[in-house]
Amino acid sequence: MSFRFQIEARDGNARAGRFFTPHGEVETPVFMPVGTVGTVKGVPQDTLEDLGVQILLNNTYHLYLRPGVETVRSLGGVQKFMSWDRPILTDSGGFQVFSLSDLRKVTEDGVAFRSHLDGSSHFFSPESSIAAQIGLGADIIMAFDECTEHPAEYARTKDSMELTLRWAARSKQYFEAHKHEVPWLSDRNPNAAGITELSSRGALQGDEGSAFSARQSAADRQTQALFGIVQGGMFADLRRESAQRTVELDFPGYAIGGLSVGEPRPMTHEMVDTAIRFLPQDKPRYLMGVGTPEEIVHYAAQGIDMMDCVLPTRAARHGLLFTSEGRLTIKNARYATDEGPLDPACGCKVCARYSRAYLRHLYASNELLAQVLNTIHNLAYYLETMRQVRRTIIRGDLTDSVHRPATLPGAGSDTEAQRSET
Amino acid sequence: MSFRFQIEARDGNARAGRFFTPHGEVETPVFMPVGTVGTVKGVPQDTLEDLGVQILLNNTYHLYLRPGVETVRSLGGVQKFMSWDRPILTDSGGFQVFSLSDLRKVTEDGVAFRSHLDGSSHFFSPESSIAAQIGLGADIIMAFDECTEHPAEYARTKDSMELTLRWAARSKQYFEAHKHEVPWLSDRNPNAAGITELSSRGALQGDEGSAFSARQSAADRQTQALFGIVQGGMFADLRRESAQRTVELDFPGYAIGGLSVGEPRPMTHEMVDTAIRFLPQDKPRYLMGVGTPEEIVHYAAQGIDMMDCVLPTRAARHGLLFTSEGRLTIKNARYATDEGPLDPACGCKVCARYSRAYLRHLYASNELLAQVLNTIHNLAYYLETMRQVRRTIIRGDLTDSVHRPATLPGAGSDTEAQRSET
Repeated sequence: MSFRFQIEARDGNARAGRFFTPHGEVETPVFMPVGTVGTVKGVPQDTLEDLGVQILLNNTYHLYLRPGVETVRSLGGVQKFMSWDRPILTDSGGFQVFSLSDLRKVTEDGVAFRSHLDGSSHFFSPESSIAAQIGLGADIIMAFDECTEHPAEYARTKDSMELTLRWAARSKQYFEAHKHEVPWLSDRNPNAAGITELSSRGALQGDEGSAFSARQSAADRQTQALFGIVQGGMFADLRRESAQRTVELDFPGYAIGGLSVGEPRPMTHEMVDTAIRFLPQDKPRYLMGVGTPEEIVHYAAQGIDMMDCVLPTRAARHGLLFTSEGRLTIKNARYATDEGPLDPACGCKVCARYSRAYLRHLYASNELLAQVLNTIHNLAYYLETMRQVRRTIIRGDLTDSVHRPATLPGAGSDTEAQRSET
Repeated sequence: MSFRFQIEARDGNARAGRFFTPHGEVETPVFMPVGTVGTVKGVPQDTLEDLGVQILLNNTYHLYLRPGVETVRSLGGVQKFMSWDRPILTDSGGFQVFSLSDLRKVTEDGVAFRSHLDGSSHFFSPESSIAAQIGLGADIIMAFDECTEHPAEYARTKDSMELTLRWAARSKQYFEAHKHEVPWLSDRNPNAAGITELSSRGALQGDEGSAFSARQSAADRQTQALFGIVQGGMFADLRRESAQRTVELDFPGYAIGGLSVGEPRPMTHEMVDTAIRFLPQDKPRYLMGVGTPEEIVHYAAQGIDMMDCVLPTRAARHGLLFTSEGRLTIKNARYATDEGPLDPACGCKVCARYSRAYLRHLYASNELLAQVLNTIHNLAYYLETMRQVRRTIIRGDLTDSVHRPATLPGAGSDTEAQRSET
């Protein structure tokens, strides 16, 4: 199997582990920066590597519209397309259809919508979303779900959850039938590990049979991993039912979706906690679209293994910086002659080199470099926060740390999270 | 003396040399990227170092308006402000006053103008421009001149040239009286090399005299270098007279200004040639605001040692890329699935890593990273072009190369050059 998850330490509900994908392994808990259209806005890939980014998120909706799935597929998939030789995860496109596009119409079959770019008409179904995600070729892909709006009544939420379950089954069915079509298993790469190994084992049933077996074996070894998504709105019993029935469909990992959509944080925590209790211990848990630095620590303590959020990158572009001393609005005049670094406790290349005064000047002058440097720092802060959480779990100190938050970075406030960079 | 220029090789009129500034040495001929407000738009300083940028240009007009001279001075000068520990050159602000500001009024004393940012009223004289440039603390600063508009009648051009000559004398007079006020010779740095050395020589005339001598000695060793500027419009006899009379004022280097302002290129070449013949062989010659890759090779062959231009950086932000195969408009649909690098002959980190297809996608999607990566490539191309010119001069092959342009990078066309990045 190409996807494997192992837990290396536990501390309360928190886990430190790692998973293995066709493009490398990832230590968890992990924060995944958002690179919507195949780029983390303003940051070159070598800088992302230097920052220790292990896995990126790309948005299927955006790549589907531009440059198009066929273009990315013909170029070898998202990793080769963006020259990023580490794992990538794509979402299903469902969330963006709900949040960005116009005139969407949901039916049993799927969602008709108009592009936010040019108004053109499109249709996503579980099958077409998975086909797009296979064509894009990320290492981890997501079942097509309906993200229930908030607030929503119980009956509406239950109907939506049932639809998501039916779509999850269709997503999986399509994936199993087509997973060998991922671009890095294409004819252009006949020497993929699986095929080579099979040949050396001499599994021959005539030419046609051999080619078929080779493809099947390669697929077993190197395909993408399809994760299921738990929905259920803000109702604990629906979250429980959604988790249980999604697990029955048997995915290699499970996301919790439909949260951080405007509800109060205690509600989020309760829904996360409910879902987690019905998810298997031995599979990774991905909480979609969160959160502040404080929140990502909190969710890791609850037992979440993977998170993504546009907050560090989007806030950076608006001059909001996360530091060990709290949040800092760099345009503030008080920084105009401040020779100190953004964050004295931060080892990133921005804090090592530039003064607050210079960063304030760049931001006040609306300079491109402000967005570049601010983004690098905020990502460094998030990534270091998560690395520190992982080390703390391994030491067995996380539960204490979360109750004494001064010992970990992040001074959070509730901020509406979003799931793509537009 | 803090500024010294030595010629190491000649080939026809071309020279390969180096000059020495308080912040390090520079090999010539040199291309100076434009970092208008203390940043080359979108490119972090460590990337500029990796590209081999030896010296940057900052625009006095912009830094004077924002963040203000006093802010930069209090932070130690432009080098420390932008965390760039290599040489910087500032222009006088004159060109921007003429090209960017509203309601300018020129008198014998100087120029009244309104800020392009907020309409506020300001006044630049030779004295205030030099005061600003001393406060900013670049390694090379420029006399305050009037850039004659094009086209201009002979009488108008001559009057303007005479004004520039009077302003040059005033610029020098003010500079000589105040050059020790540069921020890196301030009281905050009492251990500057000159002072230390003087103390060890025991030059004592009582405390006051010693302090005064120390300051004088430090100034002799470490001050900025003030360059004069040749004007004279498109009239060869005025260019000659301007050059001769500017040289009489005795500067450590000479710029040729007022060119690339809309005139045909043969006219530019004639004016450059005329001016050069009346400039001393042993001083650097700086042609302001040029040019295309082809032109910078041509001007180096004419005997120019220093050039700056916004073309590589501005063109990059608009998707126009310079390559060994000619110019490339990256938004062109033909690149949508082109897996090759921007320029197969280029060793820059953009060409080493990314495909034209990806760069086309970034540009078409209006992504920040398009501007960042395009700028890095174009700068790499210009800098490598100039390094190649220098090597060719040292080998004695430049004159031949210029007559067989295929042997050097750059396929130029006339492009209006500008002198600041806005």
